[in-house]
Amino acid sequence: MSLTNDSPEVAAAAAKTASFTLASLPASARNEALEAIHAALTASKDEILAANARDLELARKAAADGKLSQALVSRLDLGKKGKWEDMLQGILDVRDLEDPVGKVSLRTKLDDNLNLERVSCPIGVLLIIFEARPEVIANIASLAIKSGNAAILKGGKESTESFIAISQVISSALSTTQVPNSAIQLVTTRDVILQLLSQDRSIDLVIPRGSNELVRYIKENTKIPVLGHADGLCSIYLTASADKDKAAVAIVDSKTSYPAACNSVETLLVQDKALSTIFPGVAAALALKGVTLRLDAASKAALSSTTLPDGTVLDATPEDYDTEHLSLTLAVKTVSSVEEAILHINTHGSHHTDSIFTSDGAEAEHFMNQVDSAGVYWNASTRLADGMRYGFGTEVGISTNKIHSRGPVGLDGLTIYKYKIRGDYQPTAQYGEGEGKRPWKHERLAF
Amino acid sequence: MSLTNDSPEVAAAAAKTASFTLASLPASARNEALEAIHAALTASKDEILAANARDLELARKAAADGKLSQALVSRLDLGKKGKWEDMLQGILDVRDLEDPVGKVSLRTKLDDNLNLERVSCPIGVLLIIFEARPEVIANIASLAIKSGNAAILKGGKESTESFIAISQVISSALSTTQVPNSAIQLVTTRDVILQLLSQDRSIDLVIPRGSNELVRYIKENTKIPVLGHADGLCSIYLTASADKDKAAVAIVDSKTSYPAACNSVETLLVQDKALSTIFPGVAAALALKGVTLRLDAASKAALSSTTLPDGTVLDATPEDYDTEHLSLTLAVKTVSSVEEAILHINTHGSHHTDSIFTSDGAEAEHFMNQVDSAGVYWNASTRLADGMRYGFGTEVGISTNKIHSRGPVGLDGLTIYKYKIRGDYQPTAQYGEGEGKRPWKHERLAF
Repeated sequence: MSLTNDSPEVAAAAAKTASFTLASLPASARNEALEAIHAALTASKDEILAANARDLELARKAAADGKLSQALVSRLDLGKKGKWEDMLQGILDVRDLEDPVGKVSLRTKLDDNLNLERVSCPIGVLLIIFEARPEVIANIASLAIKSGNAAILKGGKESTESFIAISQVISSALSTTQVPNSAIQLVTTRDVILQLLSQDRSIDLVIPRGSNELVRYIKENTKIPVLGHADGLCSIYLTASADKDKAAVAIVDSKTSYPAACNSVETLLVQDKALSTIFPGVAAALALKGVTLRLDAASKAALSSTTLPDGTVLDATPEDYDTEHLSLTLAVKTVSSVEEAILHINTHGSHHTDSIFTSDGAEAEHFMNQVDSAGVYWNASTRLADGMRYGFGTEVGISTNKIHSRGPVGLDGLTIYKYKIRGDYQPTAQYGEGEGKRPWKHERLAF
Repeated sequence: MSLTNDSPEVAAAAAKTASFTLASLPASARNEALEAIHAALTASKDEILAANARDLELARKAAADGKLSQALVSRLDLGKKGKWEDMLQGILDVRDLEDPVGKVSLRTKLDDNLNLERVSCPIGVLLIIFEARPEVIANIASLAIKSGNAAILKGGKESTESFIAISQVISSALSTTQVPNSAIQLVTTRDVILQLLSQDRSIDLVIPRGSNELVRYIKENTKIPVLGHADGLCSIYLTASADKDKAAVAIVDSKTSYPAACNSVETLLVQDKALSTIFPGVAAALALKGVTLRLDAASKAALSSTTLPDGTVLDATPEDYDTEHLSLTLAVKTVSSVEEAILHINTHGSHHTDSIFTSDGAEAEHFMNQVDSAGVYWNASTRLADGMRYGFGTEVGISTNKIHSRGPVGLDGLTIYKYKIRGDYQPTAQYGEGEGKRPWKHERLAF
């Protein structure tokens, strides 16, 4: 890793050159680099935490002056219980994942001594833009090296001292390995994000790690593909055939287990027939957890005989169904059918994760086929949308894109493939149908 | 299919709505739609060819006035021997391909009664912009319907009469099927390309079918992902260990079997040691086929005692190594090593298809790993880069993108996946490590 003061253009070109070397390193060399980083960070804990303390001091002053939120200060703190250990363990966890590079997904005999092979390979150069959490730099450097991608990292300015300390440690650790120095670069110069976003000749993929605003800004300002999602407006459609008690548990989980997460439910669509049967119990369970309900007229009327804490019941505005509240607020809307629910979700949702609660399997399959989202669930909490929970071992991000990777993205989202052909100089003009032409064999081979 | 005069925004929104219905049709319904199109076009041959004749008449006048190339006039002609039959057969060929929708590529048991599944599904709405060939409309409509994608088609104005005739036939054919009318729309209003390219809320992927200029223009003017390639600057690296006679045959094939194709070789890199041994025979074979060589000093000197037709040998300029000649012109450059060849290709190439000719397997593997192209070949003609030749049965295009699809793209390049979870309302908060927590099972299931 190098701490670069080069221009974004020079940094990106250097990363591109380094990416070719990194892409051809064997898994053992990439894993050794992760071990070297782990060892070096372990040995440098004191100096990194000292640098982090300087960031924290500035941030606390800014917070005291009302210029920074307390939440951000808290996210900055590398010394918080377990954070340092988690960061280090994360590096070893990434090392232990299956190598995503060099996987063969197709092998075809085109003719004798003429074989086609599709092999996974790194994408090239990643640009990773993140905000305050200093531990992200170790996580991201690990993911990039493991997947054979070069990376340019640009972190939030509040963590500058921590980033510099960590990157110097990583840099000297990598110098003992086969990973080229320019493969992982930290850009610390200010106000370079727009310039980085214009390096579409050298940078192949942008990965934002931060707020919706950051992601939206990046998507608006680059031609480079962006892996991620700006919004997480997830819905649950509660039908009259759902299990009353279990539905309440799952909706409470979807809303309250981490309200600020992108996979928390924001809109509850209630079938009209469920208003008087299942919905009051669900509302009561949510209210118990402090959730405020923003209701349409029908769902509000359905709660008229349910005793709820003051302030639980509010009238919904049209904007509520397009808002990611990220808090203990849930918009509720009455619909008459699964078709209406699907239409609402495809129109107002963010194509992230949506669930139907029903005992009717055919209705559930119809919902899952028609809802245009990365995750479509049947009787399941929207909070399942997560790379660790899916069993991917890590998560690069959650994508609402319609191409390449969708939903929680694991390491293989950082790869693409190339086609290799090994032949014996056969001229293509000899092949085809008809007299004197040689037919293609096109035999699928095992891999 | 509808022939729309709606605004691009309205057309795109209607296509999006139709895409949800189309996406959930079974393969049988999509195949029946293809058969209906085939039957209707067969029955309407005369009226379509009459419309095509009107386009041709205008085009011939324009060509006589020097406003249109003769090559374009020739491409317009649907009555040319075999073209009509090929167009119709192409529809049936697409019908017979394996269904790319609904393929399961991952199945994991997260817990008892909680199963994750990754299933392929259509991308959504395609925008296909093409130039003069009227038969493309049938091909593209078939590919879209087969893959369950809605499509907006915008063709070149020279084929307007043909497009309208074909689309009216397809439209009435589809009205007897389950494919919604707005799923395939032909836009005939003029000058709407830029407006279509700005519909990134409704359109998910742009597929240009036409000249480099068209592709480059589209890539420069949209935030929607574009599947395709602007340039095809393919190279062959000829080493001293290559088979002398076979190499000449394969290089002649790469250059001359279809010089205007994107997969034809444009630059020959010659190892210095091969200049006096293999290269003269290669040059003579190319010259026999009418190829003009643009040579650097060393390669030119190597031909001093080879008798070649007048005009075969020219001096290369630096621009020649960045030019896709698309004609019987080949740039030749001398390099001293595979490293130099790799660097040249990664710097000057278009990441399309590049080949090394060598008897050294280790050198070939190194080349294939380090060259950053969709196709990397060993002793094989660059002209192999083609969906039919790869055995995909069809070709949507050839992509030089670094994400989603790379190289010749078959039907599966028009799909993405969604994650389905079928559960029993389990709250996620109960899972994790530590006391009182329930561990994830994460068992891979067969599919």
